[in-house]
Amino acid sequence: MTGQRERAILIPSSLTMESRDRRESTLKVGQIARAAAVFQYNRIVIYRDPERNDSRFMAMVLRYMETPQYLRRMLIPRREELRHVGTLPPLRTAHHPINSRSESLKIGEFRVGAVVESVGSDSGVWVEIGIDRPIPLRTEEKIPVGQRLNVRIFSQEPLVAEPVDQKDIPIYWGYETEVVESLEGYLASKNDAQIVLTSRNGKAVTPKVLQELGQSGRKRDLAVVFGSPARGVDALLSAKAIGRYEMINTIPHQGTETVRVEEAVFATLALLNLGALGGLNGNNTPT
Amino acid sequence: MTGQRERAILIPSSLTMESRDRRESTLKVGQIARAAAVFQYNRIVIYRDPERNDSRFMAMVLRYMETPQYLRRMLIPRREELRHVGTLPPLRTAHHPINSRSESLKIGEFRVGAVVESVGSDSGVWVEIGIDRPIPLRTEEKIPVGQRLNVRIFSQEPLVAEPVDQKDIPIYWGYETEVVESLEGYLASKNDAQIVLTSRNGKAVTPKVLQELGQSGRKRDLAVVFGSPARGVDALLSAKAIGRYEMINTIPHQGTETVRVEEAVFATLALLNLGALGGLNGNNTPT
Repeated sequence: MTGQRERAILIPSSLTMESRDRRESTLKVGQIARAAAVFQYNRIVIYRDPERNDSRFMAMVLRYMETPQYLRRMLIPRREELRHVGTLPPLRTAHHPINSRSESLKIGEFRVGAVVESVGSDSGVWVEIGIDRPIPLRTEEKIPVGQRLNVRIFSQEPLVAEPVDQKDIPIYWGYETEVVESLEGYLASKNDAQIVLTSRNGKAVTPKVLQELGQSGRKRDLAVVFGSPARGVDALLSAKAIGRYEMINTIPHQGTETVRVEEAVFATLALLNLGALGGLNGNNTPT
Repeated sequence: MTGQRERAILIPSSLTMESRDRRESTLKVGQIARAAAVFQYNRIVIYRDPERNDSRFMAMVLRYMETPQYLRRMLIPRREELRHVGTLPPLRTAHHPINSRSESLKIGEFRVGAVVESVGSDSGVWVEIGIDRPIPLRTEEKIPVGQRLNVRIFSQEPLVAEPVDQKDIPIYWGYETEVVESLEGYLASKNDAQIVLTSRNGKAVTPKVLQELGQSGRKRDLAVVFGSPARGVDALLSAKAIGRYEMINTIPHQGTETVRVEEAVFATLALLNLGALGGLNGNNTPT
């Protein structure tokens, strides 16, 4: 395996500006997380919209959702902002396994883990991986308690794990959440990526448009940018920046005056999944 | 104008079976209504899933959402089931106008109306159309009070409306909600329609698959069928019925174990919008 493509969704810090309450905001952010997972996007970037900055809350909810349930209590501090996370749908990705029995773990299986205090007299590193007890990690490194890391089951008896790089995990393994100050600056730093702006004022999507995007984007990183509830992406970027990127309208002939960001995200990612832009490894092989 | 194509979404009566509470169910149904409106589907059919029948609640919420705000108090009885409709997003379709000033109405403009008691000594028919007062309707017919109907502004001074057939309204004008006992029976009755089943076990969607669907479906009625949260469409129909229709997987390579019905609806309608199946009149002309 070589490294995987980065596939990013960019959403504004004002995503939640029209929500009536925190519960509604929580669900809205949750739909973005679901879309990322369903369509295998491994990065969610919250960019600063001057109109409203709810990025702290949004990032908190996104990170909560992406953390396997068995690590949440350890890794996510309790916060007032997370009061409504109980209403969120689970991601149900491969890195959020339901199975929690040590006997059914197979050699080579991947897990998200977190380092815990040494167990008993053993001075090595132990990880919590969501089974009945922490297991030892085969490593020379010193890893601080509370550190999240990916592991692979190395042996079954005794049960031992070893660290593994995310790029060596050939299946969808969740997303990272990032907050950036400037959308334009972020895009400028992504020289080699295929950048797709979505806007009602963009080119209406057709099979041909998708195919062209797919051809130029295949095997490159991908960043798909969504505007705010109040303003399209084209109102959030300079004319110069807009001219530099593809801008497409993924919901031509819309029957409603507005399309909500989370609606646009599902529609857009479904369409891009059709072109050759789909797939973590640029070739849409089933995972 | 000739009649418009019927474009139907079919969803199971068990849509809400995994919801934690009525509020969550309400929002889930609301997302289906939003999808219908965004992609200009003019019919939502709830078919009976033996596993759970929440069709009464679902139909109530769908009809509530589709009714223009200014007619809801008159046309929708108050019910316990509608307790959470305040959390629903508005449809913001052309038939839910925000403008409520009589002076700004133009001749030829369409409105949804409802017949009210005669005003003053006039014995004719009067309709509420969401402006400051009811206006007279130019008709020879007797129309019962409380009847919903579509009207066109016939004259400005005095302000008078005339009834209009929905098929003569050339823009997206909401959806009808229907409950049917048997999915298989309903589909069998739609001889001439293009029927599309969506299932994880279907043919993975590609531009070619969409194009073929579009060619055979252009100008015919369209019915897009979604399975339940627990079982795919293919588990809800006989093998014989399945063989008769196209079955496609609109989310190939999904990164999650399951895709929620409302997520599948947005993804699927976005894809079908791309093929020649889009558009109320079969040709994707902007409205």
